[in-house]
Amino acid sequence: MLRIMKVAIAQLNYTVGDFRENRDKIISAITKAKNSGASLIVFAEHSVSGTPAYGLLNKVQFLYSCEEALEQIATAASGITALVGVPVQRNNRTVSAAALLSDGKIQKYITKYHVSSPDEYGFIHKGDGAKVIEVDNTRIMIAVGDDIADIDEYADGVDLVVNMVAQPYARGIIERRWEERGRTAYKLGVPVVTLNQVGGNTDVVFDGSSSVFDAHGYAIALLPSFEEAFHIVNLDVHNETLAIPYQNKTANVYRAIKLGLGDFFRKNGYEKACLGLSGGIDSAVVAAVAAEVLGADNLRVLLLPSLYSSDHSIEDARMMANTLGIEYDIVPITDSYNQMLSDLTGVFGDKTEFGVTEENIQSRLRMVYLMALSNKMGHLLLNTSNKSELAVGYGTLYGDNTGVLSIIGDLYKNEVFDLARYINRDSEIIPNAIIGKEPSAELHPNQLDTDGLPPYDEVDAILYRMIEEGQSREEIINAGFDAQTVQKIYAMILRNEQKRYQFCPVLRVSTCTFGIERVMPITSKYGF
Amino acid sequence: MLRIMKVAIAQLNYTVGDFRENRDKIISAITKAKNSGASLIVFAEHSVSGTPAYGLLNKVQFLYSCEEALEQIATAASGITALVGVPVQRNNRTVSAAALLSDGKIQKYITKYHVSSPDEYGFIHKGDGAKVIEVDNTRIMIAVGDDIADIDEYADGVDLVVNMVAQPYARGIIERRWEERGRTAYKLGVPVVTLNQVGGNTDVVFDGSSSVFDAHGYAIALLPSFEEAFHIVNLDVHNETLAIPYQNKTANVYRAIKLGLGDFFRKNGYEKACLGLSGGIDSAVVAAVAAEVLGADNLRVLLLPSLYSSDHSIEDARMMANTLGIEYDIVPITDSYNQMLSDLTGVFGDKTEFGVTEENIQSRLRMVYLMALSNKMGHLLLNTSNKSELAVGYGTLYGDNTGVLSIIGDLYKNEVFDLARYINRDSEIIPNAIIGKEPSAELHPNQLDTDGLPPYDEVDAILYRMIEEGQSREEIINAGFDAQTVQKIYAMILRNEQKRYQFCPVLRVSTCTFGIERVMPITSKYGF
Repeated sequence: MLRIMKVAIAQLNYTVGDFRENRDKIISAITKAKNSGASLIVFAEHSVSGTPAYGLLNKVQFLYSCEEALEQIATAASGITALVGVPVQRNNRTVSAAALLSDGKIQKYITKYHVSSPDEYGFIHKGDGAKVIEVDNTRIMIAVGDDIADIDEYADGVDLVVNMVAQPYARGIIERRWEERGRTAYKLGVPVVTLNQVGGNTDVVFDGSSSVFDAHGYAIALLPSFEEAFHIVNLDVHNETLAIPYQNKTANVYRAIKLGLGDFFRKNGYEKACLGLSGGIDSAVVAAVAAEVLGADNLRVLLLPSLYSSDHSIEDARMMANTLGIEYDIVPITDSYNQMLSDLTGVFGDKTEFGVTEENIQSRLRMVYLMALSNKMGHLLLNTSNKSELAVGYGTLYGDNTGVLSIIGDLYKNEVFDLARYINRDSEIIPNAIIGKEPSAELHPNQLDTDGLPPYDEVDAILYRMIEEGQSREEIINAGFDAQTVQKIYAMILRNEQKRYQFCPVLRVSTCTFGIERVMPITSKYGF
Repeated sequence: MLRIMKVAIAQLNYTVGDFRENRDKIISAITKAKNSGASLIVFAEHSVSGTPAYGLLNKVQFLYSCEEALEQIATAASGITALVGVPVQRNNRTVSAAALLSDGKIQKYITKYHVSSPDEYGFIHKGDGAKVIEVDNTRIMIAVGDDIADIDEYADGVDLVVNMVAQPYARGIIERRWEERGRTAYKLGVPVVTLNQVGGNTDVVFDGSSSVFDAHGYAIALLPSFEEAFHIVNLDVHNETLAIPYQNKTANVYRAIKLGLGDFFRKNGYEKACLGLSGGIDSAVVAAVAAEVLGADNLRVLLLPSLYSSDHSIEDARMMANTLGIEYDIVPITDSYNQMLSDLTGVFGDKTEFGVTEENIQSRLRMVYLMALSNKMGHLLLNTSNKSELAVGYGTLYGDNTGVLSIIGDLYKNEVFDLARYINRDSEIIPNAIIGKEPSAELHPNQLDTDGLPPYDEVDAILYRMIEEGQSREEIINAGFDAQTVQKIYAMILRNEQKRYQFCPVLRVSTCTFGIERVMPITSKYGF
């Protein structure tokens, strides 16, 4: 029988290892819920610890701090039942648990069976799986993470399902998660409450989007995405049902990377950032996002023209900096470039022809200037690479492939253009000239990114099939793409694992981020 | 009843994804075993595919190629039974299997239950575990990988145990593995045959050291470490028992990194390497190892003195290059350093005091010269960082923290000294002056590495306890180490995860290599 009527859902932003702040947030939500007359309050998975914590989950001291914080939280849980996500040890191994708190005490742990995230492999171990507990004569099925997928097997007589998760944002995941939860509620004929974390930790961005679906499978509460929220749902009354709102993919990606960048800086105690502004689309988008998130005052950019930089690029970059009100310096790299080449005369011998070496020197010298600014002034360098470049190996290792964080490294080139247009939806923040021109690294005269490859539209379409959809070369060729291009791109992807290995953390907005969901060996003959 | 008497053990060096070469090696070992009258031949885990293959294990085409190669191998297995390691799909998930081949066909798969390596998490899934099969009236228990640990439970009536593994080298592992296998054989009262891979793939080095222990727990075959081997043991006769030979840790580490470096180059089709020779111990050791493995002719070094380089360092480096017969160039970086500082005048404003920024510029400029040599001449840059530096964050991101492979990045500073002395065991390859002097990065006047920290001996002792032994700060302080130093080092380790995240692959010689067994979040408040 459904006796618990008023359920509070607290969608909060936690920081890994910040036990005091996490604890205080949880306690103040419990107090608020009690004051509102709720009899149950639910938090997300890993609330006490923050996540991903990786190797910290093996540290006894870390787990002890979790327990200590949880005990303090429990003292606040009187006159209300609280479900809080926390890692605990079972048989000397760390598992992910929902702790049931009531009467000021920790009453019980329900532990997660399905360990399905690359961030947990080797750190979180299999627990027992979903369980039914009885609270105030209400039978609640509690499932942590993907254990929700198992529950139809033994949901007989259950009055309510609670699913606590810590599920990162990825394109399309919000709609999909809501749809699945609605289907589960409909199938079981009981309300389903889902609680997700919100906020960024390292390269992960949790989107929130917590939900309550009624026994008919209709949404009766859909919490906002990418921000904290607190909501109380009364399961006793007739609730207005909500339509699943249309999700704008580009808008969601934009909010995800803003949240990820902001939290990376705030949680690590950083304030100021820098980057090289080339006049191209990638650095323009990164600058626009960073200016919005960190404030134009906290951003500094360098324009680092070489012999091969076009006048329009410098002009576009300068216009962009002026529009945003960012402090900028123009530092031509020509003298140091020439000095370096002259120093290398004896090393190169007669190999004096301009080539990839000379291109890379330009890119790497720019990094040295930017890192000097970073070291001297405390502005952290933001990376400006996109996923298409990372896939095929454009970009220079230790050159433009550097930075403390990549905010567009999980976006294909065309998605970067989408983002630019979205940023400009109300006013021309990124000069239209930057969006309109053909991409070029400008490392040699009249260079275009697409030299030797088809236009980005086609490259992106092939990359998307290979990487996001895991299609084989044969499938892609059969779909009508040029066989030679497909083979060439395939080989380029495999060959450039080496560069990606040394890349910085990438804010994840897909389910197939390089280095996380997609890891390949460097030594391998496969595919050649 | 033990009817199978002659067992061949083929300890081979496989390349990831090189199905043709792996297959041919396996087939020729089968032929050799047949010619020697063996009735059973055993290969290591993952023989057909090579390992680690990571995401390739999810590719249908990769698994199909494994199966195809295995079928070809099976045709050679007539008149003999072969046990071959291969990944296969079970319920749409990849598992690690021992394939039983006889009568020219694949007869059966025994699949691994314990997935215990970070290289397998998420790629290899749980199989069924060890099983007994009957071959020629002999009951053979087959255990893949760590499933050997489970077998006493159900080993009744077994005549022989076969354990195929792919276990990387780590300090002390050879003796430990032999001891464990001897104990298992003694406990069960049956012979135990253990087959390991040998050779390097990416950052992993398999040490071989395959073994046969008799029913009394005595060694009757101990195959060599770090090289291929083929051996036939006749279980029917009285075999001479072997003492477990003493293992020299430094000699083993030396052989491990030689094998790892050599295979990284050979298997990836590389020939030539380069590095910066500073006159310090780290680059001296890397140069000595590389010259031995790749040949002095394939090595080029740059001496890149700055204003702060001491005369003796340049002299020591030059002497070292001359002794090894390596081509070297001296390229002073002073002019480009001065040019860069002058270019940055407007950016730095009044912050002109010499500091960490100016130190890093030197280190990063050196990288630009070295990578220019690398790009122009095709010499791959070898990294020269050690584990102590990586732990506390000495070393410059995008400066000396660069390269295609780190060969001493899993060795503490004191182990690098051990290695230098070992390399010099017969003649002075590394000038004694380099071994004798105090470590210094020489990035500012009179700098010593130990500025601000106790001597490396003490730092290494603390690091070893923290990293390899997982001791807490309290334990280390209670053991008598200075509390302030311990806290300082602890904070330095946590703070420098960011640098390690972007580090190159490190040849692993411990069970706690950064980035593999030791992964920490970048965003975290823990420990501060």
